[in-house]
Amino acid sequence: MKNMVYIQSGGPTSVINTSLYGAIKEARRHPDEIGNIYGSVHGVEGLIDDELIDINQEDDEQIELLLQTPGSILGTTRRKLPKDIHDPVYSQIMSNITKHNIGYVFVNGGNDTMDTCYKLSLIAKELGVDVKVIGVPKTIDNDLACTDHSLGFPSAAKYVMNTINALAKDAQCFKVGKIHIIEIMGRNAGWLTAAADLLPEDTRPHLFYLPENNFDMAQFIEDVRNVYREHGYGIIAISEGINIQRDNANARVDGFGHAQLGGAATYLCDLVEQRLGLPTRSVEFSLLQRACPVFTSKVDQEEAIKTGELAVQKALEGNTGVMITFRRVSSNPYQIEYSLADLSNIANAEARVPAHFQKDKTRMSDDFRNYLRPLVQGEINLKYKDGLAQVAKFKYVRVR
Amino acid sequence: MKNMVYIQSGGPTSVINTSLYGAIKEARRHPDEIGNIYGSVHGVEGLIDDELIDINQEDDEQIELLLQTPGSILGTTRRKLPKDIHDPVYSQIMSNITKHNIGYVFVNGGNDTMDTCYKLSLIAKELGVDVKVIGVPKTIDNDLACTDHSLGFPSAAKYVMNTINALAKDAQCFKVGKIHIIEIMGRNAGWLTAAADLLPEDTRPHLFYLPENNFDMAQFIEDVRNVYREHGYGIIAISEGINIQRDNANARVDGFGHAQLGGAATYLCDLVEQRLGLPTRSVEFSLLQRACPVFTSKVDQEEAIKTGELAVQKALEGNTGVMITFRRVSSNPYQIEYSLADLSNIANAEARVPAHFQKDKTRMSDDFRNYLRPLVQGEINLKYKDGLAQVAKFKYVRVR
Repeated sequence: MKNMVYIQSGGPTSVINTSLYGAIKEARRHPDEIGNIYGSVHGVEGLIDDELIDINQEDDEQIELLLQTPGSILGTTRRKLPKDIHDPVYSQIMSNITKHNIGYVFVNGGNDTMDTCYKLSLIAKELGVDVKVIGVPKTIDNDLACTDHSLGFPSAAKYVMNTINALAKDAQCFKVGKIHIIEIMGRNAGWLTAAADLLPEDTRPHLFYLPENNFDMAQFIEDVRNVYREHGYGIIAISEGINIQRDNANARVDGFGHAQLGGAATYLCDLVEQRLGLPTRSVEFSLLQRACPVFTSKVDQEEAIKTGELAVQKALEGNTGVMITFRRVSSNPYQIEYSLADLSNIANAEARVPAHFQKDKTRMSDDFRNYLRPLVQGEINLKYKDGLAQVAKFKYVRVR
Repeated sequence: MKNMVYIQSGGPTSVINTSLYGAIKEARRHPDEIGNIYGSVHGVEGLIDDELIDINQEDDEQIELLLQTPGSILGTTRRKLPKDIHDPVYSQIMSNITKHNIGYVFVNGGNDTMDTCYKLSLIAKELGVDVKVIGVPKTIDNDLACTDHSLGFPSAAKYVMNTINALAKDAQCFKVGKIHIIEIMGRNAGWLTAAADLLPEDTRPHLFYLPENNFDMAQFIEDVRNVYREHGYGIIAISEGINIQRDNANARVDGFGHAQLGGAATYLCDLVEQRLGLPTRSVEFSLLQRACPVFTSKVDQEEAIKTGELAVQKALEGNTGVMITFRRVSSNPYQIEYSLADLSNIANAEARVPAHFQKDKTRMSDDFRNYLRPLVQGEINLKYKDGLAQVAKFKYVRVR
C-alpha cells in the first residue's frame, strides 16, 4: 500500500479545491490501495522542502466546504522547475517521494504546471521510482491543449457574464453615459473576454478585444467614438494581454521619470478621455473573477469532482505521465467523454481562441456560443453563516 | 382618484428597484384611490421634461424581476435642482404634475435627492397643488440622517464582506504575498469599508482607513510595513474618500504634464512599492458593490419592499414632506420600527460613522458589529437562465 500526495499549482480557480475534494473522496473508496492522503504545501515546493500535510487529519465538515472555498487550500506556487531533469531538485523530490512511501502524485494546474508534472514522470521512470504522476487540468484562461476546456474556466466565464450584465444595467441608467472599459484576465488567450458574448444584445459589450488579434490604436479610438455616438455610452471588453503599443507621449511617469504602466483598461480610458473628451470608467475584475465562489457553474463543479475522482482511478490503474482531458461529444445535449492525454503533448502548449470562434470585433460566432453555453449551466447553493459564504479552515498538520 | 409617479435618483443600489416593486404592489391594492402608476424617466428630469412612462403597461413577469434587477430601471440622474424654489423649473414640474393629475410623488434616493424631495413638497404647498410627496431612503453609503440605516447599504456591505473574504483566501495561498489595497465606495462616510470588520480574523482586513479620520501618510506606510512583516501579505481596506495629501513628487503626469490622479488604492500601491519595495495589488470594487445582485441581503430586500408599500400607505393617509425611516428597537433579536421624519431634517444632512462604532485602525467596535450583523442576514434565490441572472426588461411606454 502506498500513500498519495496532491499538489495545487499556479493561479487558483473557484473549483480548484473541488478537484481536490473529488480526489480525497475517491482515495477513501480504496483503503486497501491508498494509505495516507498528503497535501504538498505551496505547490511542488512542499515536495522539494519536505513540507507535507496530512489531509486525513482535517474534519469532514471542512472537507465538504472545499466545494465553495476560494484560493488554493494547500497553498500554491508560480515556481518553474529547471529544464534539465538531472538538476538536483528533481532527485530531492524523488527522495522525499520515496521517504514518504508515495505511490501517487496528483498535480492540479495549468500549462506551466503540466511541464513540471511531465518532468516528474520522466525522472521517476529514469530513476526507477515506482510512482504514478497524473495531471488534473485547471486554468481560468482555458488555454490548456488537448482538452475541450479546462476546469475553472466555466465558472470564471459565468462571473464575467453576470458581472458585465449587472455593470451594463448600471451604466445604462444615466442620461449622460460613460465609456466603460472592462479588463478581463487572459495574457495570451481571450477566452474569458469572449465569454461576455453570451449576453443578450442589450447588455453585451459593444466591442471585444482579444490578445489573439492585432490591436490597432487608431481604429480602437474610432470604434469607441462610433459606439458612443450610437448608444450614448459604451461597454468595451478587453483582455489584459492585448498588445497595446504604449505611446511614450502618453505614458504615465512618476517623479523619478519611471514609467508607471497601470492596467490596460486604465491606460485606454486615459486615451479615450484625451482624444475624444468622453467620460470613462475603467473596471478591472482582478482576483474576483477567479476567487468569487458565487457564480460557480454547476457543470464546472460536477466536472471538477469527477476529474479528481478519475485522476485517482487512473493512477490506480497504473497510468502515469498523463493528464485527464475532456472531449466534446455533443453540445446540445451537452455530453463529454473523459480521456487521457500524454503530458508531452500538453506541457507548455497553448490553446488560443480559434478564428472560427470569432466573427468580428463586435461578436463571436455561433460555434463559440454553442461551445460555451453548456459550460455555464446550473447554480450551486453556497452555505452561508451570518451573511458570509463559508470557507474551509484547515489545521495543516505536518507530516513528520 | 389621482395618479402616482415614482422617481429613482442618484446612484443605483441592488434593491432600488425592489422599493419600486413594493410601491407598485401596494398601489395596486388601492384601485379606488390610485389610478395610473407612472415612472419619471431619469429621475426628476422626467417630471421636468414631461417624460413619464406607464408602468401598468409592463408585464407581470418583468415586475417580478425588479427584485433582482441592478441599475435604476426608470433611469436616474445626478442633477441638483436650484436652491430657490421660485426658480421656473419648480413651476414646470408642478404644471406637469397637474397636467397628469398626479396626487402622489415618491422619490427614492439619498441626501441630495431628499433635498429635491423637500423642495417639491414646499412648492406644492405654496402653489396649493394637492400632491403628497414622500421620500424613500436609499444609498449604499448609509449616510442618510434620521434613520438607523438606508436601503441598499446592507446588500453592498454583504458584497464587500463576501468579496474581501474570497480575495483574502486567494491572497493567502502564495508563499510570497502582496499588499492588497482595496478601495471601497464612500466619499465622506466609511460605513461600507467598516463592514469588512464582520469578517473572521483570518480574512478580515489588517487595516481600515475611513474618511471620518485623518489620514497620516507616514503612519500609513509604517502600518503597512508592520503588517507585511507580521503576516507576509496584507489586506488593507480604504474608503475612496480618505483624505490623501497627494505628493506632487509622486503624482502621475501625462505627456502634457497634466496630473493623472488614479484611484486612491492605485496611488497608495505605487507609494508602497516605491517606499517599501513590496509587491502590491490594488482592487477597486467599482460599480459592482452597488450593482451585483448576487449578495443582496434578504433583510434588505424585505425592508425595501415594505418601505415601498409604506410610502404608498403614508401618502394615502395624507402625509407629505416626509421620508420613511427605520428606528432600531433591538439588535438581538433584530427588530425595527418604521416611522416618518420631516424632510427638512434630512435634506443635505449626513450621517457618518460615529466614534463609538470605531475601536482603532484595525477594528471597529462590538457596537458596530451588533449594528451590522442583523442587516446582512439571509440570502435571496436569483432566477437564472442559461447561467445568467435574469433582469427585468421594460417596454417604456410613454405617457402622452
